[in-house]
Amino acid sequence: MIHLYDIGYKERRRDMAQEKKVNGVDVEQLFSTIEGIKKKPEIAKFKFRATNKWVDGTHNRATIKDFYGAGKEDNSREPLVFELDEPPVLLGKNEGANPVEYLLVALSGCLTTSLIAHASAKGIKVRAVESRLEGDLDLRGFLGISEDVKVGFEKIRVYFKIDADISAQQKEDLIRMAQKYSPVYNSIANPVPVIVQHEE
Amino acid sequence: MIHLYDIGYKERRRDMAQEKKVNGVDVEQLFSTIEGIKKKPEIAKFKFRATNKWVDGTHNRATIKDFYGAGKEDNSREPLVFELDEPPVLLGKNEGANPVEYLLVALSGCLTTSLIAHASAKGIKVRAVESRLEGDLDLRGFLGISEDVKVGFEKIRVYFKIDADISAQQKEDLIRMAQKYSPVYNSIANPVPVIVQHEE
Repeated sequence: MIHLYDIGYKERRRDMAQEKKVNGVDVEQLFSTIEGIKKKPEIAKFKFRATNKWVDGTHNRATIKDFYGAGKEDNSREPLVFELDEPPVLLGKNEGANPVEYLLVALSGCLTTSLIAHASAKGIKVRAVESRLEGDLDLRGFLGISEDVKVGFEKIRVYFKIDADISAQQKEDLIRMAQKYSPVYNSIANPVPVIVQHEE
Repeated sequence: MIHLYDIGYKERRRDMAQEKKVNGVDVEQLFSTIEGIKKKPEIAKFKFRATNKWVDGTHNRATIKDFYGAGKEDNSREPLVFELDEPPVLLGKNEGANPVEYLLVALSGCLTTSLIAHASAKGIKVRAVESRLEGDLDLRGFLGISEDVKVGFEKIRVYFKIDADISAQQKEDLIRMAQKYSPVYNSIANPVPVIVQHEE
């Protein structure tokens, strides 16, 4: 199978010889990463991590720091700390956004980055990208009131606005690419095996 | 089908008449919420939201504020702002955690809250809950290098430590309940329809 990266992007790359960055994305680094991974697929294997500590009630705190990728452990970042809580109607004190809202944050960021990365690789300059997301959740699932109700989101809707000198069809194509190649979108739209266990 | 909320929790409720809060969770409010939803199921329907603005390159910014739930719009929270970016190896500048890390934050918080809520409803007092999460991601999916590689997480592992005066089997049971009733867990382990579209 011939993939767009194998033809269109390489051709494009020659045209853009002077433009190292498109939309703030270093396309030279992007293409050299792709070439590197093609030669050595194991450097594409990443492990992302989080830790969490319960604080009180519905309030807990997650930390992001290290990850494994490109063949090595990376422990260089300062810890990033996130407060999670519920609003009062859901028994919390608004000490932070709630977990399903963090899921929407993740989805919004991933679709945006995927859209920008693929637009940049194609040499499409974008002035602005905005999105709004809404997900439907029926609490009867979480509360165990009905076995017929989905516990997770029933449906999520994402609306993008793209400001760029491209046709409506090209905007539509960018959104399809963003969706197709977004790890978070694909982790929500398709099932992911999640193993949960106790450790001493 | 007889559900644990219908029997065990109500019995427990009588025993705990003096204890309004367990693990910081207002179990009186929890049970009255459950009773209220049983009488009027439409108040269980929530809509959670996020907005996102692209900043530059792999850096974008999400905001959480309003939601719909318990039959009305809630716009009372101050906006919560989240920076999303990639580390340099993934073309970013570390302006924030990356989208797949936010997904792990969401999962960690939701499993923890689910565990605490269900422990509290059962009258199980917990001293501490900690967890660590790790997800495997092969970038060949995102980069479109191989159609055979999953774009989303291949697998996520979650390890819980629970400090409480309960047996190993009870800890195991709590983890199974946390998993079964966690909206974020169920949004990742099971497929969710996600509609992505352009708007003018």
